[in-house]
Amino acid sequence: SAAFRSSEHQHIRYNPLQDEWVLVSAHRMKRPWQGQVEPPLLKTVPRHDPLNPLCPGATRANGEVNPHYDGTFLFDNDFPALQPDAPDPGPSDHPLFRAEAARGVCKVMCFHPWSDVTLPLMSVPEIRAVVDSWASVTEELGAQYPWVQIFENKGAMMGCSNPHPHCQVWASSFLPDVAQREERSQQSYHSQHGEPLLIEYSRQELLRKERLVLTSEHWLVLVPFWAVWPFQTLLLPRRHVRRLPELTPAERDDLASIMKKLLTKYDNLFETSFPYSMGWHGAPTGSAAGANWDHWQLHAHYYPPLLRSATVRKFMVGYEMLAQAQRDLTPEQAAERLRVLPEVHYCLGQK
Amino acid sequence: SAAFRSSEHQHIRYNPLQDEWVLVSAHRMKRPWQGQVEPPLLKTVPRHDPLNPLCPGATRANGEVNPHYDGTFLFDNDFPALQPDAPDPGPSDHPLFRAEAARGVCKVMCFHPWSDVTLPLMSVPEIRAVVDSWASVTEELGAQYPWVQIFENKGAMMGCSNPHPHCQVWASSFLPDVAQREERSQQSYHSQHGEPLLIEYSRQELLRKERLVLTSEHWLVLVPFWAVWPFQTLLLPRRHVRRLPELTPAERDDLASIMKKLLTKYDNLFETSFPYSMGWHGAPTGSAAGANWDHWQLHAHYYPPLLRSATVRKFMVGYEMLAQAQRDLTPEQAAERLRVLPEVHYCLGQK
Ligand SMILES: O=P(O)(O)O[C@H]1O[C@H](CO)[C@@H](O)[C@H](O)[C@H]1O
Ligand SMILES: O=P(O)(O)O[C@H]1O[C@H](CO)[C@@H](O)[C@H](O)[C@H]1O
Repeated sequence: SAAFRSSEHQHIRYNPLQDEWVLVSAHRMKRPWQGQVEPPLLKTVPRHDPLNPLCPGATRANGEVNPHYDGTFLFDNDFPALQPDAPDPGPSDHPLFRAEAARGVCKVMCFHPWSDVTLPLMSVPEIRAVVDSWASVTEELGAQYPWVQIFENKGAMMGCSNPHPHCQVWASSFLPDVAQREERSQQSYHSQHGEPLLIEYSRQELLRKERLVLTSEHWLVLVPFWAVWPFQTLLLPRRHVRRLPELTPAERDDLASIMKKLLTKYDNLFETSFPYSMGWHGAPTGSAAGANWDHWQLHAHYYPPLLRSATVRKFMVGYEMLAQAQRDLTPEQAAERLRVLPEVHYCLGQK
Repeated sequence: SAAFRSSEHQHIRYNPLQDEWVLVSAHRMKRPWQGQVEPPLLKTVPRHDPLNPLCPGATRANGEVNPHYDGTFLFDNDFPALQPDAPDPGPSDHPLFRAEAARGVCKVMCFHPWSDVTLPLMSVPEIRAVVDSWASVTEELGAQYPWVQIFENKGAMMGCSNPHPHCQVWASSFLPDVAQREERSQQSYHSQHGEPLLIEYSRQELLRKERLVLTSEHWLVLVPFWAVWPFQTLLLPRRHVRRLPELTPAERDDLASIMKKLLTKYDNLFETSFPYSMGWHGAPTGSAAGANWDHWQLHAHYYPPLLRSATVRKFMVGYEMLAQAQRDLTPEQAAERLRVLPEVHYCLGQK
């Protein structure tokens, strides 16, 4: 029988960070696509729209007027999924009907005063200001809440309802599901092997090289061995860092620069403003922040849906929802495609 | 402080079947929606299109010609994610880089010779033929494979690439992720409480009534306490049944009838052909089929994405991908809305 080749032969891979499996069937990229094509991008976005509640000087749903901010701007989400004062549902009356209290806050962070830019089109110092705001909101909300989830939904395809460059921050009184899974995995790896899972994983990827996308003095970007989304990446500091606020000034500058490169490659892949959801994971905060979290390594996940072109995405549907995640090209192929792309944005370079 | 009301106050709920949590924030339905609106439904589908590879008499990608079938029709997927003969990747060289062999088959099952019908527009005897085909394909592929996943992606929004009414069947040499989770939960509940988790759960829902959508002599449809998708439902036999082939003729007829009612309600909710992914879960099969699987109860999950209208869906993005599932109306509110809808399809009733 034939020798195994991962780009030819389907197989399953294990995600040791989130305790999940993915089915990799690279040969499937050959199938024709007759399904849904995404609507084309919205018409050009104006730089300033006084009716857009995210713009400087605009009035928000609650009547507040935004300052004429010129860097980042953080404010309370007017329609928060988490509020600080929800009452407790009380004890459950049956083990199959368990509900628990959830408290928290939801904030919105604008990255820039202009609506017509995105992170890869911003300057490195402007992105560095975003990094600093991420670190300080983690510190601020982490003083009270055990989990501070920073995430960005970019593009209408990812449910983003406003084109102004921004992210969200949802802090909660509970450790969310994915955080719990990463906590369990990193804790158990550390107690078995005496070092953080993601530190050993980074070391291995630097040796193996086949899934690296970008490296810099302080950071790595790679397509994880267990990636589910076609061009999913993992962004990691080289040093052992548990949370965003611990990053040194040099690490923050370097992060801004590697983010600009990664997001430029993403936009260049299909010459479109590449949609994705991304978010940061670091050690839990709140009243247990002082406990031993040495098994945690700070990281960001990028989950972009596009598969074949600017308008044909991967659907995570039937089999994926009912059985197991499935992907159509190997993580190594995805890394190779991202690696060779230019680091100059297609909108800026001369063609 | 205010008394807890689940329709007013956010809280988290636990899914004991899949060991996951969901954040329920019903007050969030009040927020305005400015995001993506789905493209309108495809133009009318012709009843017969000789170029559609799913139609009777059409030629498929591999050159085979479909028979002039007049009921259901099962054939091999021409672009299968699982093939019966993939070589083994061999032992992993590192605990963080685990790959394993995956073998299987992917089939497509047409529900009806016409392209312009969907299950709710088919007659009960025609749907009964689909139920029989589901049972026999489970039996056939289950003789060899430990897991036979039947699933339907309905609608372009769910990545369905062909409007002809059909489902897929992917059988695998491994127990997929979700199956493993349901196996663990049902096994542990049974060993603790001496009866199947879903049998006790059904009994409780019949008593509590607030999440029931439909009941019949042999079946129940309810919005589970831990539902993630806005109008997600769970379809269960009243009797303890481990797998589809065990269903009696009376249970099969009754299943066809309750499915027609449920899917008619779904279409009536927003007067559209309601998109969803659905699939069946039953006890594992293959060489271990003879083991004790008494902790398993057969069930189908329906995961429909629409939230507010025929064109505004729930996006499972940023927070959901990075942290935890979140929903905007309570399961009780969803059940109530489905319950009061007519059982006559909006395309058929006189208005
Ligand atoms: O096989 P199809 O219908 O072409 O493909 C669809 O269903 C599959 C199974 O859920 C998914 O992997 C694909 O992303 C989706 O587009
Ligand atoms: O808060 P937004 O941007 O309006 O909403 C978006 O992100 C949220 C958090 O991931 C999701 O729950 C919503 O489904 C999505 O549309």
